[in-house]
Amino acid sequence: MNCILLPKNTTTIRDELQIKHIYEVLKAKVGDRLTVGEIGGNIGKATIAKMDRGEVVLTDVVLDKKPPAKLDLIVLLALPRPKVLRRLIMDMTSLGVNRIIIVNSYRTQKSYWQSPLLERIDEFVFEGLQQAVDTVPPVIEFQKRFKPFVEDEFPALLTEGDDAVVAHPYAERSWKGYLDALKTQQKMPKVLCIGAEGGWIAYEVDLLCKHGCTAVSLGDRILRTETVVSVLLGAWLVQ
Amino acid sequence: MNCILLPKNTTTIRDELQIKHIYEVLKAKVGDRLTVGEIGGNIGKATIAKMDRGEVVLTDVVLDKKPPAKLDLIVLLALPRPKVLRRLIMDMTSLGVNRIIIVNSYRTQKSYWQSPLLERIDEFVFEGLQQAVDTVPPVIEFQKRFKPFVEDEFPALLTEGDDAVVAHPYAERSWKGYLDALKTQQKMPKVLCIGAEGGWIAYEVDLLCKHGCTAVSLGDRILRTETVVSVLLGAWLVQ
Repeated sequence: MNCILLPKNTTTIRDELQIKHIYEVLKAKVGDRLTVGEIGGNIGKATIAKMDRGEVVLTDVVLDKKPPAKLDLIVLLALPRPKVLRRLIMDMTSLGVNRIIIVNSYRTQKSYWQSPLLERIDEFVFEGLQQAVDTVPPVIEFQKRFKPFVEDEFPALLTEGDDAVVAHPYAERSWKGYLDALKTQQKMPKVLCIGAEGGWIAYEVDLLCKHGCTAVSLGDRILRTETVVSVLLGAWLVQ
Repeated sequence: MNCILLPKNTTTIRDELQIKHIYEVLKAKVGDRLTVGEIGGNIGKATIAKMDRGEVVLTDVVLDKKPPAKLDLIVLLALPRPKVLRRLIMDMTSLGVNRIIIVNSYRTQKSYWQSPLLERIDEFVFEGLQQAVDTVPPVIEFQKRFKPFVEDEFPALLTEGDDAVVAHPYAERSWKGYLDALKTQQKMPKVLCIGAEGGWIAYEVDLLCKHGCTAVSLGDRILRTETVVSVLLGAWLVQ
């Protein structure tokens, strides 16, 4: 938690985790300045006026810094194990993904859709924002039917000249070769499709490619979904 | 587990996790071909000759493929929370880091050094190799004293012309600018120093810089240690 996020016009912190962080990690006391942000708004500093384990009251709130820009990027993610989803949502939020579409896939177990963790997505987003010192949540949606989504809605994600990529360990084209070619046009892909444990099946890769994606491989080494997401998004930090 | 690793000249699998994987994930049966590798040796295929929950016997073992090349890279990692260490060791192994040095730092809690997970590093390496279809473990060492290590041993990691980087969210130089400059010389850094939760303190960054490191920042967004490792290592995949 590198920033404490608060709703608009709020100067009293009552969130248990935030108070715990102020006491136990920051070891802050009355008079200390904290980094705070307004959900959807600016980032800045505030002074602790009063504090106990039930609430921390802030004063002199100055929110003078814009949140970091989002990446112009949509991630289409096959629903992974719910525990993995938590870290993925946090990481994609921290890294600044603009929109996240969570989709069913052949290798997504049906039980994952019933997990109570799916109801807690907003918490994971909140964690990711407070980690990254950002205030603007990505747009997140769920799509439980792969084929109709890819056929009917996926193409509309791309406008003239936009590129989309599906990560697939067995693709012939390399991520590096693909990126190098795009960079000569000073572009980055607009959509990134990432499978869950076990990856996409051939049918899914083919359907995505039929609707505008290029399949790329990260090389001989097969990586965990979480690692793939960060490795791929790292390319936006050095574009 | 995308590959089942076995000691040299072994054709009987008795490892519980490997057997569980063969039954429950691969749902393999007698006659099926599995991807196997010899620890420190080649990768290939083998046929299941006999199987039960206690052991799986292989036949027709053909190990005809070399493991993927390692990165010419040493990662110096401040010891993080042991649970995080497990995933970091797995990821760095999967991504092909050649050597990992785990060092104490100001923000490493003393109790971390007593964690029983530290005795299980070899397991995490094994997991990472089986994930990535690699057979050669990275060299891993522990350094419990930061200052003597950096002053006396760190400089020897670098030979003439080698570069080293310390990741630090508040560094002035950007990772992108640094990499671009190195790429004009067709080089990548030889050593990457990554802090634990809360990062390095200024004294540590300064000492590393005094001994050959350049401090670089990944931008305004502050990322979790695990994310930083994958994001940075991603640069080697597109170098």
